[in-house]
Amino acid sequence: MASHSSNLWQRWFDVKELKINTSSREELKDITSKVKRSVSDIGLEDGICVLYVPHTTAGITINESADPDVATDIVSQLEEIAPRDKGYRHREGNADAHIKSSLIGNTTRIFIENGSLQLGTWQGIFFAEFDGPRSRTVWIKTS
Amino acid sequence: MASHSSNLWQRWFDVKELKINTSSREELKDITSKVKRSVSDIGLEDGICVLYVPHTTAGITINESADPDVATDIVSQLEEIAPRDKGYRHREGNADAHIKSSLIGNTTRIFIENGSLQLGTWQGIFFAEFDGPRSRTVWIKTS
Amino acid sequence: MASHSSNLWQRWFDVKELKINTSSREELKDITSKVKRSVSDIGLEDGICVLYVPHTTAGITINESADPDVATDIVSQLEEIAPRDKGYRHREGNADAHIKSSLIGNTTRIFIENGSLQLGTWQGIFFAEFDGPRSRTVWIKTS
Repeated sequence: MASHSSNLWQRWFDVKELKINTSSREELKDITSKVKRSVSDIGLEDGICVLYVPHTTAGITINESADPDVATDIVSQLEEIAPRDKGYRHREGNADAHIKSSLIGNTTRIFIENGSLQLGTWQGIFFAEFDGPRSRTVWIKTS
Repeated sequence: MASHSSNLWQRWFDVKELKINTSSREELKDITSKVKRSVSDIGLEDGICVLYVPHTTAGITINESADPDVATDIVSQLEEIAPRDKGYRHREGNADAHIKSSLIGNTTRIFIENGSLQLGTWQGIFFAEFDGPRSRTVWIKTS
Repeated sequence: MASHSSNLWQRWFDVKELKINTSSREELKDITSKVKRSVSDIGLEDGICVLYVPHTTAGITINESADPDVATDIVSQLEEIAPRDKGYRHREGNADAHIKSSLIGNTTRIFIENGSLQLGTWQGIFFAEFDGPRSRTVWIKTS
């Protein structure tokens, strides 16, 4: 019993790292199956899967994964909301990416029941790249 | 003691479902009292209430509930930010709703102390409908 | 052992309060060191630090803290996205602040490992003031 609890403890407190490679400057990349595999490795039956992006020019969002046009529309409209070239003060040419990151957010969560991620019927998990292409990381922790 | 822990365990891991009926295409619907009732049913004294919307054309947000004009202004300005008709690629006529969903977010959390939700003085919890009217669901889990 | 668990329990369930003074109407104020001190006081080795803003005209976001121009650009672009004067229905002259609050969000979280906050290399935690200057509060809970 003590040993069972302590294994559970371990699984809760472990942070896993997902490696993501993006292929364009701006892109919503579907990482649902990667996250599912990772949660399955952790082996938690019931709880919450927390995802955290440690970057400042990227984010994470949950949206429709059936039609890839949805992801494309989100990226295009964000470009209207925070255009790339606009005389920003930040001199690295990626101020728009920082703004988009704060609008979309860098962390989300999904419930786990009976060992599987509880997504809605049409939902997928997207890594939101705004200043790629790059090698990126997503941290996963369950609680 | 063992039995007390195991009840607590149960309460933590249980996901409850709120049913929401929206009445317009776009609407911020105040669900504060529904969430309060649900948290009171769960009976957790101290913890965190996590809310999750399993839809891709809706979201959840915390904002002022005293003056209903605030909710109206948020909905109207989102329509400026992501107009309904704009030649999006997604063919179902609700690309704007998907974009708004990612901007507002589909999950939030509120602290619980002494068995009650800890909202700020002016705060209410709003279900954000962007492609209604529909029957919708919000998942609640405490941790 | 029982006493160790119960201390841990206490630390988990305690909500701490940060006091923030903002100095302009709109401002992203870096509160990273304040949050770090608070997490260090709580003394949790591994877990999640949850931050919650109990206001409806402010928010919280994680973004680059190295170059202060990034924060300035985010504030300026939000003013384009939801301009201050626009004939909103809410009569208190701060409808834009409510809209910005829902776009940025009022809650976030950061992982804790080995007693320290796990932020990405360039990340800082910002209190987002949209209707200041004011005395504000951020609630912190670990889980």
